[in-house]
Amino acid sequence: MQLTRRDFNRLAAASAAFSAVPRIVAQSTPAPSQKKTRYAAVGLGLISVQHFMPACRQSSMSEITGLVSGHPDKARRLAAEYNVPADSIYTYENYDEMRNNPNIDAVYIGLPNGMHAEYTIRAAKAGKHVLCEKPMTTSVADAEAMIAACKQADRKLMIAYRCQLEATILKARDLVQTGALGKIQGAQGAFGFNAQPGIWRLDRKLAGGGPLMDVGIYPLNTTRFLFGEEPGDIKANSSVIDHDGRFDQVEENLAWIMKFPSGITASYNTTYGAQMPGFLRIFGSKGILTLEPAFGYEGTHLVARINGPSRGQPGTTIDMPSPDKDPIEFVHEADYFANCIQNNLPVGPSGEEGLRDTRIMMDIYRASGRT
Amino acid sequence: MQLTRRDFNRLAAASAAFSAVPRIVAQSTPAPSQKKTRYAAVGLGLISVQHFMPACRQSSMSEITGLVSGHPDKARRLAAEYNVPADSIYTYENYDEMRNNPNIDAVYIGLPNGMHAEYTIRAAKAGKHVLCEKPMTTSVADAEAMIAACKQADRKLMIAYRCQLEATILKARDLVQTGALGKIQGAQGAFGFNAQPGIWRLDRKLAGGGPLMDVGIYPLNTTRFLFGEEPGDIKANSSVIDHDGRFDQVEENLAWIMKFPSGITASYNTTYGAQMPGFLRIFGSKGILTLEPAFGYEGTHLVARINGPSRGQPGTTIDMPSPDKDPIEFVHEADYFANCIQNNLPVGPSGEEGLRDTRIMMDIYRASGRT
Repeated sequence: MQLTRRDFNRLAAASAAFSAVPRIVAQSTPAPSQKKTRYAAVGLGLISVQHFMPACRQSSMSEITGLVSGHPDKARRLAAEYNVPADSIYTYENYDEMRNNPNIDAVYIGLPNGMHAEYTIRAAKAGKHVLCEKPMTTSVADAEAMIAACKQADRKLMIAYRCQLEATILKARDLVQTGALGKIQGAQGAFGFNAQPGIWRLDRKLAGGGPLMDVGIYPLNTTRFLFGEEPGDIKANSSVIDHDGRFDQVEENLAWIMKFPSGITASYNTTYGAQMPGFLRIFGSKGILTLEPAFGYEGTHLVARINGPSRGQPGTTIDMPSPDKDPIEFVHEADYFANCIQNNLPVGPSGEEGLRDTRIMMDIYRASGRT
Repeated sequence: MQLTRRDFNRLAAASAAFSAVPRIVAQSTPAPSQKKTRYAAVGLGLISVQHFMPACRQSSMSEITGLVSGHPDKARRLAAEYNVPADSIYTYENYDEMRNNPNIDAVYIGLPNGMHAEYTIRAAKAGKHVLCEKPMTTSVADAEAMIAACKQADRKLMIAYRCQLEATILKARDLVQTGALGKIQGAQGAFGFNAQPGIWRLDRKLAGGGPLMDVGIYPLNTTRFLFGEEPGDIKANSSVIDHDGRFDQVEENLAWIMKFPSGITASYNTTYGAQMPGFLRIFGSKGILTLEPAFGYEGTHLVARINGPSRGQPGTTIDMPSPDKDPIEFVHEADYFANCIQNNLPVGPSGEEGLRDTRIMMDIYRASGRT
């Protein structure tokens, strides 16, 4: 049974109404005594070591019980820190032997984008559930193969769309979906940063693309999530301005527009050539909603201005800083998936959700003249 | 001799360096005793009566000496208020007789867009200089005819791009053009409002188009002005969401993207279906500039955050509310043109400038599937 966005919206809305924190997790009530979901962290880069793994340490539902790395020293050091036994440390070569390890339920894929598909598929074949970082992967074919592999192995697949579990973004969706903002007419989003030379994100094979796949995906996914609609009329421009070697393989700048079936016209910017703080603004016939900062780890901020009941009458302002700072957002992410696994619940930010974004990003590249 | 944007940039930069207020006017030093430029206000709608005419009353270089209206009562009332003699009140029928009136130097065209061309051309033929509200007109052919008529009559033509004379926007241009923001990579702009039923702006014949021509033109023109480049790769989506009769003739929503020759990727939104305060954000490799509010009569606000000299070092913030509120912006506009006339100076926001925007707006409509 495929879970539709509508189903997920209903589930999440119900959970949000039930209890504010932890939000999504509240869709069921796990007994405090139940066993934790045991993750192996695959790839020991920044996002694993500084975000996901410390989050698991703070969680009552998730823990780190395995490590996968090409750097034995780093793995040993982190194994000591997280009490991971030596026989639960894997390399990329003996990764598949994880199938014989009953102390690992799931993997967290924190690898460069171009490796997501292979290590998701191998994990599913080894009988593990997969929480895979965004972007899901670098091609539509890969995304489809990842979904098929998890389905065949009867394992759950979640794409780490952290923002879909974030309190201000759930509030934004609530304001959109309940009609508090009236009919949504337009949206503007942005996210980017000035990339340092030499990072893997500039390598086409590892990254799949430039800032669109890395950070442009945030406003793209979030608008789809808020509106509950799938966009079309995708048009895009890209450019490289800095011919300093950074952008020999991926785009530096990209602007694109999409139109949603209800008529919402949305525009977006992303870049690897300038600071571009996360920004999202939604224009409704009854009010405006701004998320700024919108997508970062270090807290978001929602301000919604709802018009008064008629012209000239005072309106309402909702000012909501995100209640949670890093790493709590990652605790929610780990625990949301743990809850799905433990209670056999459908996953909201599913592989299908990642596939949809992958298709759209490929359409954006095609529309911009990059392939 | 055609004045290029570069020439104008140089003139304006020189004037800005010379004296902050009045900025553009300072490009020459009119003697206090010189005679004022005498305007006839054509069309006695809000923009004339509440903005341009009161501004002339505050000016030492501009004054109202004629009125053109289809409403005799309103004209008589305003004539009394502004000491306009009865023989300087015209209707749209006897408008051309203005040629025999030596007490009128120029006209200010505050009519609906679809009437700009006719009344500009007739004014030029009557020997008057023309300050025409934006958008210049509703077709490229009209814009060309307006330029030709003024050229043939040896009369000056200015399009009322008030923002090009505005202190925060001149500061923004300075930050862009001096490289203080580094290499500009991207831009996002927006401007729109929720249109009341029945206004002429919803009538295709009078308005020429919807929010793009009325308010979308602000971020369009301002980015061209800031960057000093002419955009291409124009792509657009438009929609009508509210089928309540307002949008039978013009678009309700429009999002578009353009790419400038240097590689700047820019995205824009406009609407007549929601509040959409003027907004402009420029992303440079060395800093970010935000104008918010950006284009309104009631003051603008510039905030620029310039990065520190290297990563981790403190940066600089420039926080500049516009020094002038309505109607001072209109005084600058009236006086800038008065100065051009009195001292035979080239006009920065010229007919050619208006023609360029007209071409781009027609390209945007074509790209959106509207014609």
